[in-house]
Amino acid sequence: MARPEFHIFLCTQRRPDGHPRGCCGSKNADAVYDAFAQALIQNNLTNRVALTRTGCLGPCMAGPNVLIYPASQMYSWVEPEDAAIIIKQLLAGEVYADKLTPAELW
Amino acid sequence: MARPEFHIFLCTQRRPDGHPRGCCGSKNADAVYDAFAQALIQNNLTNRVALTRTGCLGPCMAGPNVLIYPASQMYSWVEPEDAAIIIKQLLAGEVYADKLTPAELW
Repeated sequence: MARPEFHIFLCTQRRPDGHPRGCCGSKNADAVYDAFAQALIQNNLTNRVALTRTGCLGPCMAGPNVLIYPASQMYSWVEPEDAAIIIKQLLAGEVYADKLTPAELW
Repeated sequence: MARPEFHIFLCTQRRPDGHPRGCCGSKNADAVYDAFAQALIQNNLTNRVALTRTGCLGPCMAGPNVLIYPASQMYSWVEPEDAAIIIKQLLAGEVYADKLTPAELW
């Protein structure tokens, strides 16, 4: 794709069961990824907004975590139904305050 | 980590041998990742600059690809010896023009 207006990074890292940090991959991150992908497709945004899977973004205890640049917004405890809301707010220049990562975590 | 000043994303995706798009993971991307990690550690920058592995960033034919936000710089055909140069230029507010991804690719 050409250079996107926004780039959504979603942690889908998997760690072994019982790992003390846990991981986004065991907390439904794949379903969250699919929800973002579907929302971008359905709203004809795939040329404006990129979506990329990542390894660890840091605050594992708060996953699934979603990081959006260049807006520099991180969202935590993200669920599939949040994807369309986050994208809509992003394009409106707003943040979805309900799921913003707490300042002490990022 | 706290919110970083810069976030370096490096594609380390692997595709099966012979896949028509190829992949950064088969082009020494792990060594490039290690070089960035070492450069950040050696320069005491791990609290200012984050480093994260990603899936596909787009221009597979030009990998390994490195994407830096919020600066919105993409570098391609990156080699381990480029890591320290890219970081130094980034912190100086400059770009490393030799390895910037061509505009037709990103």
